[in-house]
Amino acid sequence: MGISHLLDRKPRQLSGGQQQRVALGRAIARQPQVFLLDEPLSNLDAQLRDDTRAELKQLHHTLGITTIYVTHDQVEAMTLADRIVVLDRGQIQQIATPQEIYAHPTNQMVATFLGSPPMNILPIRFEANTALVGEHPIAGLIEPLKRLPAKQGDRFNLGIRPENVHVASDHADLEIVVTVVEPLGRETLIRGTLPDTDTLVALQAAPQTHVRVGDRLPLQLDLSQALVFNPATGANLTAPTPPPKPSIGQKYR
Amino acid sequence: MGISHLLDRKPRQLSGGQQQRVALGRAIARQPQVFLLDEPLSNLDAQLRDDTRAELKQLHHTLGITTIYVTHDQVEAMTLADRIVVLDRGQIQQIATPQEIYAHPTNQMVATFLGSPPMNILPIRFEANTALVGEHPIAGLIEPLKRLPAKQGDRFNLGIRPENVHVASDHADLEIVVTVVEPLGRETLIRGTLPDTDTLVALQAAPQTHVRVGDRLPLQLDLSQALVFNPATGANLTAPTPPPKPSIGQKYR
Repeated sequence: MGISHLLDRKPRQLSGGQQQRVALGRAIARQPQVFLLDEPLSNLDAQLRDDTRAELKQLHHTLGITTIYVTHDQVEAMTLADRIVVLDRGQIQQIATPQEIYAHPTNQMVATFLGSPPMNILPIRFEANTALVGEHPIAGLIEPLKRLPAKQGDRFNLGIRPENVHVASDHADLEIVVTVVEPLGRETLIRGTLPDTDTLVALQAAPQTHVRVGDRLPLQLDLSQALVFNPATGANLTAPTPPPKPSIGQKYR
Repeated sequence: MGISHLLDRKPRQLSGGQQQRVALGRAIARQPQVFLLDEPLSNLDAQLRDDTRAELKQLHHTLGITTIYVTHDQVEAMTLADRIVVLDRGQIQQIATPQEIYAHPTNQMVATFLGSPPMNILPIRFEANTALVGEHPIAGLIEPLKRLPAKQGDRFNLGIRPENVHVASDHADLEIVVTVVEPLGRETLIRGTLPDTDTLVALQAAPQTHVRVGDRLPLQLDLSQALVFNPATGANLTAPTPPPKPSIGQKYR
């Protein structure tokens, strides 16, 4: 647990993170049949949180003890779980593997909860055989919408992850006004709004992308991974299969 | 601040994160000449932390008030700072823009602190005109080491970021035994050790990479961004320029 240098300390001489690690160690020493962990990493600082997450995963692999792990942190959910149960206000939204939930979320709540930064949600409407985001026609959306099938005047939400939005080199689907530029080292996270709207768009760009707050930035959308949601119910209309219904006694592995 | 629905609550009815947002609001309302923020986001949960970080950045852009921001979270340092001061046990290690620190860290401590997951550090030695990681010769390292110049028998640490380590399709530089596989949705984080050593290697692989704990995984190193450190002092031997010496009154913008 990386706490052997703390053996001589009294409990109140430990930091929040150190206390958390002691508690984890005590839980393991009892050799329980099930671990119930409720946000065990929330008091650790960033680097320790990443390291402890990997250690927990390795420990779980070694011990093989069933673990129910409650977290608000979607990275922890994605990386630690064999099976994720996504809850929204007490209601189960989806039960699936991390990869299934990421690629085929059952609804908009699940789609925007998993993934960081969250999936972009753009209101679209289908009019005169054209798919419009604001006043911009997006040609690549026409066929997927027709397949739903969409009727003239229908409105949808387009869900597209930041890694599938690119700075346009030639043909631009959309344009944003840049509001935040966050360099992350290996990439730059850019956030902006569609002109004259409050619709937010985030994208991951190359680290050397030169862009400033207030710039207009042309964007290209990779629609191959995009999703279409019902704006009223949030249901994922692109999902290939309905989500499994949870029932007591059902096995998920 | 997203706290207007809390106006009727007493302080003790607020969560830690809500109290933190109230404190930030109070600091802004005083219209100070300088903000001194000490880990302002550490009590917020993951999603709120990301959102608040972007809001703080936007707020800073709007208000234009000089801010000294203390954090252990390298993502906050990278994304919020115009200039980062990296401290290690009270000693200034480097003062530079986020991009400079990421690409040209002054030493191994700075290199491994910025970036998540941290830069891999592999011990290498130069022998009989060959650069060896463990017993594996890495041809691409010979020229860079000769340029230092390296002498026969010299030992170095190779620093290579997880995004520059790839699963080998044909020619493999190294092989690891996989210890942790963490799917993150847009990519999969794989950690392993070089056989018969405790040298850790992390890499970011495609989300559909099928690999299991215990597998042997052949790796290719993209050495174009790799760094070479002095294993005794940690100094970055590849750095093109010496780090600026901080002095009182010196201007950094």
